Amino acid sequence: MGRTSDAKEKILGAARSLIEQRGYSALGVAEICKAAGVPKGSFYYFFESKESLALAVVDEHWAAQRSDWARVLGSDAEPLERLRELFVETEAGQRAVQEGCGSVSGCLFGNLTLELSNQTEAVRARLQEIFEAQVDMVEAVVAQARERGEVGVADTREAARAVVAQLEGQVMFAKLYNSPQRLGPLWANCRALLGAS
Amino acid sequence: MGRTSDAKEKILGAARSLIEQRGYSALGVAEICKAAGVPKGSFYYFFESKESLALAVVDEHWAAQRSDWARVLGSDAEPLERLRELFVETEAGQRAVQEGCGSVSGCLFGNLTLELSNQTEAVRARLQEIFEAQVDMVEAVVAQARERGEVGVADTREAARAVVAQLEGQVMFAKLYNSPQRLGPLWANCRALLGAS
Repeated sequence: MGRTSDAKEKILGAARSLIEQRGYSALGVAEICKAAGVPKGSFYYFFESKESLALAVVDEHWAAQRSDWARVLGSDAEPLERLRELFVETEAGQRAVQEGCGSVSGCLFGNLTLELSNQTEAVRARLQEIFEAQVDMVEAVVAQARERGEVGVADTREAARAVVAQLEGQVMFAKLYNSPQRLGPLWANCRALLGAS
Repeated sequence: MGRTSDAKEKILGAARSLIEQRGYSALGVAEICKAAGVPKGSFYYFFESKESLALAVVDEHWAAQRSDWARVLGSDAEPLERLRELFVETEAGQRAVQEGCGSVSGCLFGNLTLELSNQTEAVRARLQEIFEAQVDMVEAVVAQARERGEVGVADTREAARAVVAQLEGQVMFAKLYNSPQRLGPLWANCRALLGAS
């Protein structure tokens, strides 16, 4: 018998993997528990509902991604170079998932936004917080680049939103064509959006 | 009793509306038939499977949207003005859906791309064709603008992909924030992506 904390981690890991492969609505609690190798009864010991599991999966994934983004976007490199590195790591991440399971899975937050945001207000609110935080992090770098005269944007907030939207749109196409290389033009597109010199 | 063609149209209409509200995986055939007001038996008279219904919904929606895009992007207006009009109509369309059902539903093709493209190859292939056709239509306008010296892009194909990706990314945010106004910056972002003078 594993510790109860193991069971919770197993459920979270199985749920994240299944949600990435098949979305949220298609999954049942029994299937998640089977994939996690835990008895179904233990699910409701840790999670009130399938929705609360979705929120926990989102939180865990964001904790990891926020840490990655903070490392890259807060590094000592020049501001625009940090943005370029973010796209390089995003492409590498999608390629790693494809090598692992055969398919580019896309962005968990983008997937759940389009699948769920008009169905559950709790998930919508959490995803809004996450995308706001992403825009915050990108905007900080854009503001630094502007101080150095390297970009020509008037509204750093709107420019950061455009960059994150471009990222989500191109990740959508990487998933559609099952091709991480679709993310290759992100850097040039980001420079264009920012009016980079 | 209605004609059988009425029943097929009713199923398609109900399915499209339900898919827009709740996605594809969450729906059952019985629920679709109930919403359409047709007996469940008639479903399999018209459709081999739920997947074939999804393809029919996608085809019907694209036939209507392609006609709208062709009208706007093939008009007598100047090339960049046609692109601006496409974004104006997209925002108006999302606003109309929101006024009708309370929620911005996003782009049916983007929604199904993130929900289904790594699950069913038939849907993936159809969505690829549709997005390629969208990129074709945008690229034709970008090429005309370039001939007139109004944009500064080297690769019209890649530029058109970036514009469609930006559209999909911003529509995602319009859905997330249930706010058609999120599409307001699309025109400025498109101009930046195209290096418009």
